[in-house]
Amino acid sequence: MLTGYTLPRTPKGASSLVPAPPWHYIGNVLAVEYETDPEKAAAFLPQGLSLLSGQCAVYFIEWQYAGDTGKDYLDPVVSQYRETILLLSARYQDRPMAYCPFIWVDQDKALMRGLIQGWPKQMGETWITRSYDLPSKAAPGNGSGAMLGAALSVGGRRQAEAVVTLETETTSLPSPTFAGSALVRYFPNLVQGSHDRPAVHELVQLKSRDVKLSPVWKGKASLTIHDHPHNEFHDLKPVRVLSGYKFTVALTVDDLAPLSDFTLP
Amino acid sequence: MLTGYTLPRTPKGASSLVPAPPWHYIGNVLAVEYETDPEKAAAFLPQGLSLLSGQCAVYFIEWQYAGDTGKDYLDPVVSQYRETILLLSARYQDRPMAYCPFIWVDQDKALMRGLIQGWPKQMGETWITRSYDLPSKAAPGNGSGAMLGAALSVGGRRQAEAVVTLETETTSLPSPTFAGSALVRYFPNLVQGSHDRPAVHELVQLKSRDVKLSPVWKGKASLTIHDHPHNEFHDLKPVRVLSGYKFTVALTVDDLAPLSDFTLP
Amino acid sequence: MLTGYTLPRTPKGASSLVPAPPWHYIGNVLAVEYETDPEKAAAFLPQGLSLLSGQCAVYFIEWQYAGDTGKDYLDPVVSQYRETILLLSARYQDRPMAYCPFIWVDQDKALMRGLIQGWPKQMGETWITRSYDLPSKAAPGNGSGAMLGAALSVGGRRQAEAVVTLETETTSLPSPTFAGSALVRYFPNLVQGSHDRPAVHELVQLKSRDVKLSPVWKGKASLTIHDHPHNEFHDLKPVRVLSGYKFTVALTVDDLAPLSDFTLP
Amino acid sequence: MLTGYTLPRTPKGASSLVPAPPWHYIGNVLAVEYETDPEKAAAFLPQGLSLLSGQCAVYFIEWQYAGDTGKDYLDPVVSQYRETILLLSARYQDRPMAYCPFIWVDQDKALMRGLIQGWPKQMGETWITRSYDLPSKAAPGNGSGAMLGAALSVGGRRQAEAVVTLETETTSLPSPTFAGSALVRYFPNLVQGSHDRPAVHELVQLKSRDVKLSPVWKGKASLTIHDHPHNEFHDLKPVRVLSGYKFTVALTVDDLAPLSDFTLP
Repeated sequence: MLTGYTLPRTPKGASSLVPAPPWHYIGNVLAVEYETDPEKAAAFLPQGLSLLSGQCAVYFIEWQYAGDTGKDYLDPVVSQYRETILLLSARYQDRPMAYCPFIWVDQDKALMRGLIQGWPKQMGETWITRSYDLPSKAAPGNGSGAMLGAALSVGGRRQAEAVVTLETETTSLPSPTFAGSALVRYFPNLVQGSHDRPAVHELVQLKSRDVKLSPVWKGKASLTIHDHPHNEFHDLKPVRVLSGYKFTVALTVDDLAPLSDFTLP
Repeated sequence: MLTGYTLPRTPKGASSLVPAPPWHYIGNVLAVEYETDPEKAAAFLPQGLSLLSGQCAVYFIEWQYAGDTGKDYLDPVVSQYRETILLLSARYQDRPMAYCPFIWVDQDKALMRGLIQGWPKQMGETWITRSYDLPSKAAPGNGSGAMLGAALSVGGRRQAEAVVTLETETTSLPSPTFAGSALVRYFPNLVQGSHDRPAVHELVQLKSRDVKLSPVWKGKASLTIHDHPHNEFHDLKPVRVLSGYKFTVALTVDDLAPLSDFTLP
Repeated sequence: MLTGYTLPRTPKGASSLVPAPPWHYIGNVLAVEYETDPEKAAAFLPQGLSLLSGQCAVYFIEWQYAGDTGKDYLDPVVSQYRETILLLSARYQDRPMAYCPFIWVDQDKALMRGLIQGWPKQMGETWITRSYDLPSKAAPGNGSGAMLGAALSVGGRRQAEAVVTLETETTSLPSPTFAGSALVRYFPNLVQGSHDRPAVHELVQLKSRDVKLSPVWKGKASLTIHDHPHNEFHDLKPVRVLSGYKFTVALTVDDLAPLSDFTLP
Repeated sequence: MLTGYTLPRTPKGASSLVPAPPWHYIGNVLAVEYETDPEKAAAFLPQGLSLLSGQCAVYFIEWQYAGDTGKDYLDPVVSQYRETILLLSARYQDRPMAYCPFIWVDQDKALMRGLIQGWPKQMGETWITRSYDLPSKAAPGNGSGAMLGAALSVGGRRQAEAVVTLETETTSLPSPTFAGSALVRYFPNLVQGSHDRPAVHELVQLKSRDVKLSPVWKGKASLTIHDHPHNEFHDLKPVRVLSGYKFTVALTVDDLAPLSDFTLP
């Protein structure tokens, strides 16, 4: 009998690209809130969601991951990755809910865990300035006035870049926030005649537990979204950049909430 | 309305990681046939397949891809990738049929097209010696006596390496061959209580059309499979290495053949 | 006694990043000739060279390398790399001579061999469409009408891209050509007060022997040089694109010709 | 006139791979002290140094860099890199002094700054577990009992791996320490007949200023050095592993101390 939570499934089950949840994450986040053209943003929402506002947030995150047994973080080659997430401000029925049209990671395991949750993950390279606890011309500090940059490249092309200047601690996270995001699980069919009838097509809501947050710093931000020949991120460019944020977050994922089922044609 | 064959699905449908088929491929192949312990090989087969013999083949391939419209190969960043495929000699009902327990690619688009077909794709780095049409100490020739190497690294660890010495042209491909392979499409669930009840779990058979082959060269081969902490490839190590092969193949994929359905519990 | 042609020098001398020459190379080349603003081009020439014309050539090359002993190409991880070379049309005394202001490779060994010859090498990612000997929608052919693309990315930013459409065989190489290029060997000092007095600063001429060429195809070309924040390549943008070329070249390097010595201040 | 501290030298001097010093660095360090066979270690020392003891230290470091003007850390693509350094315990005249036989970085700018200082830099991939200030199963803590891993891969092969378990704060750094290391600046000649007469061959001592240190944690450690076909690091394997360390360091480099000159033959 083959076992494993994902392919490759094998006799011992020790080869799955991703083990069964729970999945534990901790990451340093640099985020930028901005406003985009609401009409364009609305067009990116799947059936079942409506637009709450044109406010978006881009998150650049340096993650470390571990499964439930052992200490995966001792093998940082497989436990560390970087990610850029774009979120729109949507509404499901009466509830405000973020929705993710684009997300990039730099590792296959993170990509697979994402697909299973409904994140539309692709490969891309994310870079984020690091703060350290020592004074140095090679790093910003940790407090007011510190400037941090972030960048995303996709297929050897610069896709987005941001700079955040910290001003004050705040008690609120960027909005929309990724906890509780609406996502679409989707797995296509390849049999002739069924290319437009996916095997899986579900509107779901991300569930996370044991969320822990560091103090949150907020400040000024700049953000540039570059044109890219292979995606439509540039249709969600900023018309006004709002605030930037820096914080650390830890969370655990081992569940998902179905929102409504699409009937396959 | 969102469109696109895969996530991300967008208003224009121009962002999907992978467009709808047909998918056209052409690649240079270095392959090695070998025998592994049949008992161990049998344990890697999914329900519905039985072992034909302990004969395996590893394929190292340098691919170029294009969709059906335009000339994707003009953007080699997205159209080129390298792959290592392992195949076992299985049988479905009375028909001999290869089965793929492990496969590695170096690109997200190739990974996604693979998952849709049932290839258990992960990221890995494949390298293959190139032949050229000029005499040089920096390259083997194209004919008898030419030696070519190949290597696979996974997560910064050498996983496999091979050397093939060409001897004669042949009319047969390595066996098992990847055309018509049995594969398992698999997409897990994440809702609590359903982690062991995948949303998709189907035994399928790869379909390809318009297959074209260059002359096939055959010769001696060596092959080493290294232990790896994150997979069970080493349980399929060679007990005897048979022959090596070099050829070019072109093919088109836009269909898949269901073999039997598993009933989800 | 430590031995080795480059650092790291060790007891057995088996660790040098680069072994002593001869160095054998073979590569597939896609090249584009173009005209840039002659005044700008002239400003890029080192002392000892003057501008012949505003004609430039960009070469995108997929190389395979081997040292003199053994068959390095059996370990393609270390023997294969890709390169983009820019050449200007210069003159040394009465002799026309190409000069290289910018060059990018994707491997440390190639970078080190380059620095020793005077190539101003940096890391960058080069991609080139491949032709194959089979008909396929995934590849151009090898003859008239075949279109091939090339791209260079530096630091996650697209730096240059080209498309060449083959028309006819020709007997001439692109001009300027890299054989016999003028280069500047340069190794800085770090002792305080000597930062502007390099330890090595020599105008040299590239020497190669045993040069072999495939048939050369020529045709139409397009070329775009993108702005980049970390270099001045964009000051050498095309004002007119001339022709594109495709060919294979093999050569050996084990010598260098000093042209004139700069006196260190 | 061309300007720039390194190649490529250009009209504006804005293209040099590396700008003139000062160079500011800050990095998180995981280090392991160990004992190797003293006879083997002695064989790795250049003329002018003698062995102090068989004690070695391996440093795994995640660096951020900035030049003297502007805030390079806002462009993390070019300012961040990771490094593995091996140091031997040597003596120059009567002074204890570390010596570096091997070092790996993952970026061309770091490689070039290294060569200028005499570090024998090559490309390799370093990974280090990160600590965060939040409790999480995905990360070790910052204090006693925390376990952190590190790994080095070179050319797709695992070269070294370590695990450190923190126990107590300490006031001493690992020994040998990299401040004040002896290094060899070396730049070969390529003109026929001069391949064994380098243009630069100098024993120097690293100088750094404005060194700042975080609290230093010390504890147990394990370390494995794997065989590698392309270097002799395995000749410096541990016979006994001593202690592990974790700390942050900031420093500035803009000078170098010549130790003695080798006479070129």
